Amino acid sequence: MLKQERALRTRHSLVRSAAEVFERHGYAQAKLADISAGAAVTPGALHFHFANKAAVAVTVQAAAAESLRRAAHVATRRPGLDPLQRLTDASHALADRLRRDVVARAGSRLSDDEACRTHLDLDLSREWGTCVHRLLTEAKREGLLADGVSRADAIASLVAATTGLEVLGRTDPEWLSRPALTRFWELVLPRLATPEALATLSPGGTRWTGPGTPAPRL
Amino acid sequence: MLKQERALRTRHSLVRSAAEVFERHGYAQAKLADISAGAAVTPGALHFHFANKAAVAVTVQAAAAESLRRAAHVATRRPGLDPLQRLTDASHALADRLRRDVVARAGSRLSDDEACRTHLDLDLSREWGTCVHRLLTEAKREGLLADGVSRADAIASLVAATTGLEVLGRTDPEWLSRPALTRFWELVLPRLATPEALATLSPGGTRWTGPGTPAPRL
Repeated sequence: MLKQERALRTRHSLVRSAAEVFERHGYAQAKLADISAGAAVTPGALHFHFANKAAVAVTVQAAAAESLRRAAHVATRRPGLDPLQRLTDASHALADRLRRDVVARAGSRLSDDEACRTHLDLDLSREWGTCVHRLLTEAKREGLLADGVSRADAIASLVAATTGLEVLGRTDPEWLSRPALTRFWELVLPRLATPEALATLSPGGTRWTGPGTPAPRL
Repeated sequence: MLKQERALRTRHSLVRSAAEVFERHGYAQAKLADISAGAAVTPGALHFHFANKAAVAVTVQAAAAESLRRAAHVATRRPGLDPLQRLTDASHALADRLRRDVVARAGSRLSDDEACRTHLDLDLSREWGTCVHRLLTEAKREGLLADGVSRADAIASLVAATTGLEVLGRTDPEWLSRPALTRFWELVLPRLATPEALATLSPGGTRWTGPGTPAPRL
């Protein structure tokens, strides 16, 4: 194996191990010794890649943002689907990523951790808000929102509910399970969509958002 | 002033100052010196009341729980109102308390702070879930839920949405403003309630939940 390739592999293992340690103990209590041990490398090897704990946290957060952005990007730009379906699909894609990818979970959590103030200033919740805003604006323009539903109120409520699901999912993964999210959309979509739009929507997401979606490489 | 009364007053000031410091800096970064300075007492006076930072945090959390429980208790048990109205009122009462009471906000936030692991093991989010569960079960029994709405799904979605509002309100208080919460219920109640029940409901809460409600003493 080339030296550079080995270094990349070690870095990848360290980021994954760090995500596991941050998820288990939080930022303040996480120990660099546990991170290097989890990646089966020496503390010296860790320090070759990262100056300190904050540098590890920044890398975990950046990798999480990349993973989640990619998942949302693919879902929200899929051609041939109406904006409400793409929004539903994006939520399933993000939940799926959070369920399966410890780096996505840990990074998302670190961005809310009071003890972890990195220069990254990541606001994934705001990015998701922008995404919901864009898709509901499209839905309004295409006449898909039910009579009497304000676009602004629908955006705020959806952002709040999905934020809540993510936060609750941190202590109980059931909140982010595919059936739970499907039931959420089954409840919400009949209020948001016109009857015609509703008839074409799949609250469980379209097939491609299933567990087969490959996770991105770090 | 009696000695005991003065001690109680100092303790009250310390809890309030601690809440302000925890809210601004998070648990890990909070400094006892800032807490005593904020209460205009010496570090020695702080140590007379609290052995260490964890002891201060436990007291802030307990006071927050007491404040929030009392607000919810009054709203959810008000006679003469149907359970969906009492749920709406309880959410307004809690949001009102969180907006106006720094101790409620800081305590609620501490219970999610990874760095703050106290023996209190407070789960306010679970308590709120139990409250939503109880009131929607009553609503179902009284035939107030719209056709095709599953009680379990309604509970889960309401808990998620209200949790999200609280979490988002930590960085932007607008999420917990009375108008924002009213618009949330205006959107959600038509999906949950039968048309007959809906006609009697006030999404903005009944008058008594207004800003006149006195905050409890610590």
